[in-house]
Amino acid sequence: MILTVDVGNTRIKAAVFEGNTALENFVFEKNKLEKKIEKILKKFQNCTDLVVASVGKVEKEAFLNFENQIKIHFLTNDDIFPFINKYATPKTLGIDRMVLAAGATLQFPKQNRLVIDAGTCITYDFIDENDHYLGGAISPGLRLRYESLHQFTAKLPLLTLEMPEGYIGNSTIQAIHSGVVNSLVYEIDGFIDEYRANFLNFIIILTGGDADFLAKRLKNTIFANSNFLLESLNQTYQYKIDND
Amino acid sequence: MILTVDVGNTRIKAAVFEGNTALENFVFEKNKLEKKIEKILKKFQNCTDLVVASVGKVEKEAFLNFENQIKIHFLTNDDIFPFINKYATPKTLGIDRMVLAAGATLQFPKQNRLVIDAGTCITYDFIDENDHYLGGAISPGLRLRYESLHQFTAKLPLLTLEMPEGYIGNSTIQAIHSGVVNSLVYEIDGFIDEYRANFLNFIIILTGGDADFLAKRLKNTIFANSNFLLESLNQTYQYKIDND
Repeated sequence: MILTVDVGNTRIKAAVFEGNTALENFVFEKNKLEKKIEKILKKFQNCTDLVVASVGKVEKEAFLNFENQIKIHFLTNDDIFPFINKYATPKTLGIDRMVLAAGATLQFPKQNRLVIDAGTCITYDFIDENDHYLGGAISPGLRLRYESLHQFTAKLPLLTLEMPEGYIGNSTIQAIHSGVVNSLVYEIDGFIDEYRANFLNFIIILTGGDADFLAKRLKNTIFANSNFLLESLNQTYQYKIDND
Repeated sequence: MILTVDVGNTRIKAAVFEGNTALENFVFEKNKLEKKIEKILKKFQNCTDLVVASVGKVEKEAFLNFENQIKIHFLTNDDIFPFINKYATPKTLGIDRMVLAAGATLQFPKQNRLVIDAGTCITYDFIDENDHYLGGAISPGLRLRYESLHQFTAKLPLLTLEMPEGYIGNSTIQAIHSGVVNSLVYEIDGFIDEYRANFLNFIIILTGGDADFLAKRLKNTIFANSNFLLESLNQTYQYKIDND
């Protein structure tokens, strides 16, 4: 069994895998890290490996407390990945995006693949049918948009995510919901249309905490799987073990 | 002559009008307010009226120092506007959006009008052919998107506005430029398409500090005028005087 841990910008997500099957998923705050890992390892005593992908600021020490209990691997850009990295700055490519690209390459072999991760940020990552990773885009996620409207203006309130009633918001609150949610929907459809104009027959994978919320509003058909990053982390680690 | 002053969330914009003609435009930081107004009034001694529309936090006192020199009017939601306000919360409708809607109503009479203001925030405001103001949307502007990507993540740099090289950013920097600029372009085109699907024959006015930057990337044909808010402020004030 493998315990996968994804340290994001906002929260930590984790899952225990037996082969390719997720046995249980966990989401928790960063200050709960040690307690949570301890609990998980107590429940799943057959865990032999712990693999971490981190884009956030989490001290390695928190994990190293478990070093004599389980084999720990911090995935980095120097590990072996199943795609050819055509990024001009491979050292600054976020490990989350590397993992998503690896997962797409392994799960959907030899086709054009666009992975969209809707979390703190929205990341777009494209791997072509020759397994070349070409890059993508990074834009603010839903929560960041609400936050920035409030924080950088004198009078707009801070709202929490809600489906707008329509595209013409007829109150300040509805105008903000429309401006945040509809905008992101238009953006995602816009990017997909742009890729579609240049690449035939490609698969779109939508993941991240806001995947399910967004999926039903998109005009494009996509494959929504909010667990795709952890699945990919599990597969990337197995690929690394098999090919090291 | 009328001196119009638009106090935004980030900067102050001002212009002196003779009838409907702008004689000179000014952009300055908030802490320069008093000095700048003094200078402008010294140069344009025929200014009889000063009209202010403020969405930012600027003390009225800074203006009131000029009270015995010029007639000062702070435009508010309680003034007379040339459209019928169908907003459910008219008291919280930003005065900038009221002014834009008024300017569109006066400059392009009796047609469907969409005003897009690309500044600190992107605001969308729609006035139908019966001069009913219906509302719109508010989303983060270009600078806010760059800021939020940096501020709410551990590792992304703060960039300044730049045209992305393409839609597939092949470096972290290009991925951010694509995610900020292309996203906003897709968003604006997405909103326009949505309006177009529901209203025939409408005019689109694009204004704000980023109007010229964005205009050349949009697939939709728009009327770009970065001075539209100050022109509208001048016209709204004249309309108020004529109809009070």
